[in-house]
Amino acid sequence: MSEDASSLNGRKPAPSLTIYDVARAAGVSIASVSRVLNGHTTPRPETRERVLRAVRELGFVPDGAARALSSRLKEVVAVVFRRPAVEPSTEIGAEPEFQDEADGLVFIDVVNRGIEISAQLENFDLLLSSVRVDEPTPHGKVAKLAGKSDGIILHDRVLTPAGVVRLSEKIPVVTLAGTPTRASVNIVADNDGGMRELTHHLLGTHGYRSIAYLSGRADSPDNQARGAALREVAKEYGIEPAVGPVWTGEYSAAGGVRVIRQVLAEGGALPRAICCANDQTALGVINEIQRHGLRVPEDVAVTGFDDVYIARHTNPPLTTVRQPIERLGALAFQTLHSMIGGERPAERQIVLPVHVVLRSSCGCRPDPAPSSGHGLAQR
Amino acid sequence: MSEDASSLNGRKPAPSLTIYDVARAAGVSIASVSRVLNGHTTPRPETRERVLRAVRELGFVPDGAARALSSRLKEVVAVVFRRPAVEPSTEIGAEPEFQDEADGLVFIDVVNRGIEISAQLENFDLLLSSVRVDEPTPHGKVAKLAGKSDGIILHDRVLTPAGVVRLSEKIPVVTLAGTPTRASVNIVADNDGGMRELTHHLLGTHGYRSIAYLSGRADSPDNQARGAALREVAKEYGIEPAVGPVWTGEYSAAGGVRVIRQVLAEGGALPRAICCANDQTALGVINEIQRHGLRVPEDVAVTGFDDVYIARHTNPPLTTVRQPIERLGALAFQTLHSMIGGERPAERQIVLPVHVVLRSSCGCRPDPAPSSGHGLAQR
Repeated sequence: MSEDASSLNGRKPAPSLTIYDVARAAGVSIASVSRVLNGHTTPRPETRERVLRAVRELGFVPDGAARALSSRLKEVVAVVFRRPAVEPSTEIGAEPEFQDEADGLVFIDVVNRGIEISAQLENFDLLLSSVRVDEPTPHGKVAKLAGKSDGIILHDRVLTPAGVVRLSEKIPVVTLAGTPTRASVNIVADNDGGMRELTHHLLGTHGYRSIAYLSGRADSPDNQARGAALREVAKEYGIEPAVGPVWTGEYSAAGGVRVIRQVLAEGGALPRAICCANDQTALGVINEIQRHGLRVPEDVAVTGFDDVYIARHTNPPLTTVRQPIERLGALAFQTLHSMIGGERPAERQIVLPVHVVLRSSCGCRPDPAPSSGHGLAQR
Repeated sequence: MSEDASSLNGRKPAPSLTIYDVARAAGVSIASVSRVLNGHTTPRPETRERVLRAVRELGFVPDGAARALSSRLKEVVAVVFRRPAVEPSTEIGAEPEFQDEADGLVFIDVVNRGIEISAQLENFDLLLSSVRVDEPTPHGKVAKLAGKSDGIILHDRVLTPAGVVRLSEKIPVVTLAGTPTRASVNIVADNDGGMRELTHHLLGTHGYRSIAYLSGRADSPDNQARGAALREVAKEYGIEPAVGPVWTGEYSAAGGVRVIRQVLAEGGALPRAICCANDQTALGVINEIQRHGLRVPEDVAVTGFDDVYIARHTNPPLTTVRQPIERLGALAFQTLHSMIGGERPAERQIVLPVHVVLRSSCGCRPDPAPSSGHGLAQR
């Protein structure tokens, strides 16, 4: 059987067809088309079949452009995130208090896992780089990464919106929990909806009459949206929430500990409910409250945001807002990958749904034990 | 003052001097010398001073070799780790049981953080890539990474020792918790010492008469060393530990849950103490034991290994073996970085010390509360 393209389906190939057309017809990225046409292995047989079907149906004759594109691709996406300004611990033997948590960027790690797994499916690797949260001009570092990758994903607020626009002129950019710009796509969870639902639960269902928002980093768009939603709902209940400089953490357990210590040291009373900007902050808050002999949730209700998996293992288990964390990362890669393939993104911002997960740190009763004891342990 | 090298210290420069000599005299890597001589900024002023001092003392005249080397360097280290064979979850709304933990590779994430922070200090970025634990031939993927990086760090058992030797012929290789080979350096924690100390604590101090080792992945060198140490110490006490196929996890909470379920479903009794291969396994074990109405540690003592920071937040807090996790990563990068600079490593294996951290899951009494209640909460 002849593989001559002109004989396929008895149609004469349209001379203007490009691999962009094949990619569109197959519903895959141009990079995938390129890899299939160059005979590279792909982890997804269905991608290969879709491309080959589109080639047959369109009567497309590859002309070497695919090969050229493939060799131009580095098959690398860069990911940049912010980390606290701490040095790696070299101390051995000391039981650290909450130093580790500052380095255990659980949320970012899980997002990056989602990016990485999705990238593997397209044969891309992750070029990972962090900038210190107090780094004044990370633009140079990010620009250097652009030279080593086909596209960049920026977490949180690595660059200003103007910096994102400038970077986007050189290379496709997706931001995570950032700000949409005319040149980049932002992927974000529904902070507003999640925090509204949670605040209504605390002030409405539980009827608490005082509440604080223990913030994350002040310049983080996620943090700003969560704080604003809490303030608005509290206002509906006629409650003035505790917010501001005293109640400012930095998304870490250590930050939560510091705030609680300071409030108590200054002789202040804790509010009946403390909404933390993320789960790691809540970890530190619960721990510090209990160190002072107060009970969670009987004396103070504490909630988180993210639902990182530790939330189920705290004592008491943490009521929080569940984000689809891996999905955020996977979607960031998929969006960037299609931009690398030359597609224009349909949206400037993608908002993923969240939902409140009620455990017992808010004052809800814990689930009853699923089964009674069997007495199966040896002594 | 003349900057002519021949006038420096009144000595005539030895014509055979290279930047390798400068690196040796300054006690830094050749890459650092290169960057200083090319006027690149470096995050450590003391490195710059040491290089310039060595240049003066040796009377070295840079000849462009440094520049050439610098331009040859990609300033990228690749890191490869194994992950469970799960697809990214796209489900939203369901409360997952322990699926997430399989993806929350906390230990590996913290090691990678140590690598990343150390790499930043030398202006290197991290190229991150995972292989599925059931991937039969990851060699091709790893070889492809070699083309994008200056050196490679392999976690656990990504390649066979023979595969590591072959890779080392092309590019410097450091393994983490792997096996030393004649061509690579292995960095590992003292699994044997840590597990011996822990087993003596359980069987000696607490006097438990039955014990299980709930393993990690069978081919993991860490797992093998920990299991062997437990078996040997148990033998000293005349105890035959529960080990083998039934007691095989995969370093995940889900694996721990599965093992406990299976043992109980088969009508078996749980031993008095269960030593888990890592902390995440212990999380699942504690949770599943409590679901069956048994108490930890009163009915069954449970211990971990690693001391990831979740260990302090479990209920009860987890007794475990503390590894210097970030330090493992930092040392892996520093070793690799010096190899990239042309230095021959002094050792084929570096073993880092560990120590047992006693909390209450082993049966030790929890710390008394640090302070009594203040009654500071608003109602």
